[in-house]
Amino acid sequence: MDLWFTEKHSPNMGITLRIKRCILQQKTPYQQMDILESYEYGKILLLDGLIMFTERDEFVYHEMIVHVPLLIHPNPKNVLVIGGGDGGTVREILKHPEVERIDLVEIDEDVMNACMEYFPEVSQGLKDPKVRILIEDGIEFMAKGDNRYDIVIIDSTDPIGPAKGLFEPKFYQNVDHTLGQEGIMVTQSESPFQDPKLWSWIYKNISSVFEKAFSYLAFIPTYPAGFWSFTLASKVRHPTKDIRTEHALKLSSTTRYYNPKVHKSAFSLPNFLKSELTKPS
Amino acid sequence: MDLWFTEKHSPNMGITLRIKRCILQQKTPYQQMDILESYEYGKILLLDGLIMFTERDEFVYHEMIVHVPLLIHPNPKNVLVIGGGDGGTVREILKHPEVERIDLVEIDEDVMNACMEYFPEVSQGLKDPKVRILIEDGIEFMAKGDNRYDIVIIDSTDPIGPAKGLFEPKFYQNVDHTLGQEGIMVTQSESPFQDPKLWSWIYKNISSVFEKAFSYLAFIPTYPAGFWSFTLASKVRHPTKDIRTEHALKLSSTTRYYNPKVHKSAFSLPNFLKSELTKPS
Repeated sequence: MDLWFTEKHSPNMGITLRIKRCILQQKTPYQQMDILESYEYGKILLLDGLIMFTERDEFVYHEMIVHVPLLIHPNPKNVLVIGGGDGGTVREILKHPEVERIDLVEIDEDVMNACMEYFPEVSQGLKDPKVRILIEDGIEFMAKGDNRYDIVIIDSTDPIGPAKGLFEPKFYQNVDHTLGQEGIMVTQSESPFQDPKLWSWIYKNISSVFEKAFSYLAFIPTYPAGFWSFTLASKVRHPTKDIRTEHALKLSSTTRYYNPKVHKSAFSLPNFLKSELTKPS
Repeated sequence: MDLWFTEKHSPNMGITLRIKRCILQQKTPYQQMDILESYEYGKILLLDGLIMFTERDEFVYHEMIVHVPLLIHPNPKNVLVIGGGDGGTVREILKHPEVERIDLVEIDEDVMNACMEYFPEVSQGLKDPKVRILIEDGIEFMAKGDNRYDIVIIDSTDPIGPAKGLFEPKFYQNVDHTLGQEGIMVTQSESPFQDPKLWSWIYKNISSVFEKAFSYLAFIPTYPAGFWSFTLASKVRHPTKDIRTEHALKLSSTTRYYNPKVHKSAFSLPNFLKSELTKPS
């Protein structure tokens, strides 16, 4: 059988991967979930037909969404993850021994269970005693504002459907209230090459709430254009001047993408992106 | 008509682009040349079925292969381009008024003529009086060793078939002889994510000849994995410490990708690539 999965990044382009087998096809209460095994990128998790991660390149996404904020904060003890039910983000947070508690707020328990079963190398950390798993809507959880965190990581799907609220100013205000003075928020913020308007819209929303916002980049081959961004908000800490370099170097013995130079370099935006951020809306 | 072009980056994956029309399909003495017009990436030049460049993202490749070496050299007057018949590299070199002469050695005149006709925005510089065009084999040209250059840019196709010799130590030795003491060579060096062995083979060959070799990265969405590299060799100049920053800043008003921060950052390699370079062969 010559089986191919094609993800269209727009109506006019996409990537295509040869598939060994379909492992799971399941409709959860929230979305369509599929797991495929590919020849080139290992097993793949898809939600609503879009690649969430592949075994071969998930390390880039998970290392960059976690280690950048955690190495800017002087002493991150309490970390909140919104989304991230696959566990990859938690796995990376657990590399920081100073973190005492991780709250993970995932709306779709079925995704988490499937990842525990089919992606043990990604989800391994979900059973760690530091991790508290809350199956609920991240937007509602933040609106309650019952807890205080040093770091909030928004590890969500694209800003369409139920996840859209995770990219809007009202949600960011609630994140702001939950963060301490040195607190840092980070969110995945889409492909600035594939959709610069969406990227600058996210940046604008974050900037409307937080004093300082910074976008940074990473190579993620199976995401649109292979060109991905994260956007970080901070009250006082600077993302390239306030790196805990000694910790970052030590951590680098456990990472495949992240190191302190990569951390700093990720914040250097090409000219065509810098001008996108300064365009009048 | 629902027409799609798919480029396989391996037997098991590829990218796919919706095509408006086929502009040209021609067999030259050296290769199959096709020009397509796509919906998402504008017009595309293909050689032997592989994307050489698209109108939408060629700026990244051409800016990064040119401005990085030219801004490291203290005073580049004579520049040699091997390949690069499309003219994009020449267009960027011409942004440096200190350059007095550009020799372009292209094996396939048909490619150059097609680019002059169908890609005027890329090829515009080929008619500049500073440019001398030599239709001949780059390997043979370098073996003659008749000229001296400050910069040699190898803007070639992949190291298969006739271009393979452009990536071998014997060729690099000839480049070395043609360069002055402060001379710099740069070559495109493939996708380190898609094919890390090929990338480290190129690096090893360059390192076997030149004192200093450095690989650097750029996001090029239509190339394999969207994750591309260049490798630079230098006798004395350092690629991030010896940037002519004032010139680089001035140049940045004319570039869409390049700026001095992007220049420096491009040399920060993720851990999985650094370890690839230090593996015993």
